[in-house]
Amino acid sequence: RIDGERLWARLMEMARIGATAQGGCNRQALTDLDRAGRDLFVGWCREARCTVSVDRMGNIFARRAGLDDSLPPVLTGSHLDTQPTGGRFDGVYGVLAGLEVIQTLNDAGLRTRAPLEVAVWTNEEGARFSPAMIGSGVWAGAFDLAYGHGRTDRQGLSIGNELERIGYLGDQPASVRPLAAAFEVHIEQGPILEAEGLTVGVVTGVQGIRWYDLTLTGQPVHAGPTPMTVRRDPFMGLAGILPRLYRLAEEHGPWARVTFGDIRAEPGSRNTVPERLVLAVDLRHPEQAVLDRLDAAFRAIVAEEAERLRLAADIREEWHSPAVAFDADCVAAVQGAVEQLGYSHMPMCSGAGHDSVYLSRVAPTSMIFVPCKGGISHNEAEDAAPADLEAGANVLLHAMLRMAHS
Amino acid sequence: RIDGERLWARLMEMARIGATAQGGCNRQALTDLDRAGRDLFVGWCREARCTVSVDRMGNIFARRAGLDDSLPPVLTGSHLDTQPTGGRFDGVYGVLAGLEVIQTLNDAGLRTRAPLEVAVWTNEEGARFSPAMIGSGVWAGAFDLAYGHGRTDRQGLSIGNELERIGYLGDQPASVRPLAAAFEVHIEQGPILEAEGLTVGVVTGVQGIRWYDLTLTGQPVHAGPTPMTVRRDPFMGLAGILPRLYRLAEEHGPWARVTFGDIRAEPGSRNTVPERLVLAVDLRHPEQAVLDRLDAAFRAIVAEEAERLRLAADIREEWHSPAVAFDADCVAAVQGAVEQLGYSHMPMCSGAGHDSVYLSRVAPTSMIFVPCKGGISHNEAEDAAPADLEAGANVLLHAMLRMAHS
Ligand SMILES: NC(=O)NCCC(=O)O
Ligand SMILES: NC(=O)NCCC(=O)O
Repeated sequence: RIDGERLWARLMEMARIGATAQGGCNRQALTDLDRAGRDLFVGWCREARCTVSVDRMGNIFARRAGLDDSLPPVLTGSHLDTQPTGGRFDGVYGVLAGLEVIQTLNDAGLRTRAPLEVAVWTNEEGARFSPAMIGSGVWAGAFDLAYGHGRTDRQGLSIGNELERIGYLGDQPASVRPLAAAFEVHIEQGPILEAEGLTVGVVTGVQGIRWYDLTLTGQPVHAGPTPMTVRRDPFMGLAGILPRLYRLAEEHGPWARVTFGDIRAEPGSRNTVPERLVLAVDLRHPEQAVLDRLDAAFRAIVAEEAERLRLAADIREEWHSPAVAFDADCVAAVQGAVEQLGYSHMPMCSGAGHDSVYLSRVAPTSMIFVPCKGGISHNEAEDAAPADLEAGANVLLHAMLRMAHS
Repeated sequence: RIDGERLWARLMEMARIGATAQGGCNRQALTDLDRAGRDLFVGWCREARCTVSVDRMGNIFARRAGLDDSLPPVLTGSHLDTQPTGGRFDGVYGVLAGLEVIQTLNDAGLRTRAPLEVAVWTNEEGARFSPAMIGSGVWAGAFDLAYGHGRTDRQGLSIGNELERIGYLGDQPASVRPLAAAFEVHIEQGPILEAEGLTVGVVTGVQGIRWYDLTLTGQPVHAGPTPMTVRRDPFMGLAGILPRLYRLAEEHGPWARVTFGDIRAEPGSRNTVPERLVLAVDLRHPEQAVLDRLDAAFRAIVAEEAERLRLAADIREEWHSPAVAFDADCVAAVQGAVEQLGYSHMPMCSGAGHDSVYLSRVAPTSMIFVPCKGGISHNEAEDAAPADLEAGANVLLHAMLRMAHS
């Protein structure tokens, strides 16, 4: 059994780095605060006698040798970066639970046949740099390294240069090595486990995600003398498109998601109809076929409204992460561990993308969820019960032990 | 008669300062380019033997002495600042037409009883600093000087400091002096004169304008796992509010205007429902009573949609410029001048705010409009015919002469 108090104490210590006034965390990828968080983690790993390496994408691997160190490792991990108004658990919990697994085995004097590794993946959130999960994505071969290094934030700073600046441009190749299995424990970030009164989600897959930049272009004209009827106003486009997209989600049942995370107007002058609106669109569904239907309907709605309002519309797909089904053996290992430990549980599909999505392309992978308060995440008020976090880490420990042939 | 070619040549020379790739102008208030435009104008005024003074708001006054220099002057003028994607005529035309009036009188060796003045008012556009017409507004006593100096742009730079930086923080008090009359010639910025095939608009008043910042606050949550039905999503608020506000304009007839010039999402992360949207709203109507009804309906719609969607809504009024009726004698002077010169014309109400709005509070005031191509303004493609610009300046000349008792 892991030490729940030690885990909690470390979560709280890490949360001080980038702590916000509302009790959350703003520790965005590759900032000075991210460096401080990484340094703290690496120090703990060294204390736990792990070998630490860093790859060309800044992904960190802390390794505990196996009895047969030539065997492929059993890996766990998640990320230390947060949203700009993020919480204290999203990502961090999965990293520190992995460290807790290693420390628990150290304390118990137990060796595993296969080595164990805890990974910190770079820029999982996709908030500072788009897309999300880019560190694990490059490592798993979904993106090439040049693409990864070239992604820029709003100030035009690139991942490659920022990695170098904070001292985390490592020397190891950012490419896949054989893994025996990969697990990730995470807060659910949704309301289901709490509503069902259950402790553990046995995650069987991750829903599909599509990100777009929708650009609506009209004609800038004066807000005063220009009659409403002659305008080509991108905001009229928005007035037409937004309600139809929300209705589209409704028509596709309780699992469809439509989110607009960001918007920008150009030139952005109070008394000028904007020339252009750029809107960030996020569509999701657990079934890939339904997600593809949402994609087609989204494009049709935009085309119709743009034509009706004499606007030019451009849809640029920023990212596509297709729906994923996790490995049956890994899911069974989690299921077995939960049953062995006697926690209440249910199978579930993840609504959020995770590094496990890309790992699952190259290794047997699955995930473990624990409840979070009110289902709220990507919010400074994000919260989770110490007992649930302890339970999830125990499940992780036992699932890893099962796959490490110990 | 004024020299239309000289006027056009100067318009084109001024348009080189801040010229944009699309043939427009980006010479925003109190930038280095604004300074260059001001310097060019002041040089021309000195060549025309005017006395130049600058007040504490950076308003420039070029004065041609009268036969009786103790008489209150007849003033004309407009502004040299532009929108970020502005044209070559909005404002500049009124300034250079005023200079052309003086030069025409110089060339003809004609003196007027009352002195004549050409004013350049600071930050008329309201694009870099809100509100619009702040230089004339302070001068006319609508705002106090501390308010004027304290207004900041998006970078937090203030009008007071920027005036000092570009060398246009003058020593004259920015407060009203007695005027015999004030005139302003401007492109219409709307489609009416062109559609009617007429050369001159005899402007009888200016419609009322209300500017707001509408803030919708919800709850930031994760775009993936959070069911649509539990969200408090400011974009859902927008989806409810935008169509209703456009419908509101429609219901209030062809003169009502609703414009959204700018928008901002916070935190602005692709996979997070925004906590907050801040939207710039511009409502206009020529009748103050109707504008006030639009204001009330706007507030009611926002309150209803916010309550329905469990959002917090805040409406901050940024600016209110009530509907204005111009001075009957000044309107008659313009009407008389147009008839004398034989230009086709019609009476009209201005859809745009102008410095004349604030001048009309403290002096007999009216305006003269000429057509612009396609009615398009606040757009780099803004255009006007040299013959129309010449006609408007001739009307200005004769209207000013009428009021200067010459
Ligand atoms: N776990 C998490 O918040 N991932 C971000 C990727 C996404 O789902 O948008
Ligand atoms: N003339 C002009 O563009 N004025 C700006 C003030 C307004 O918004 O109407």
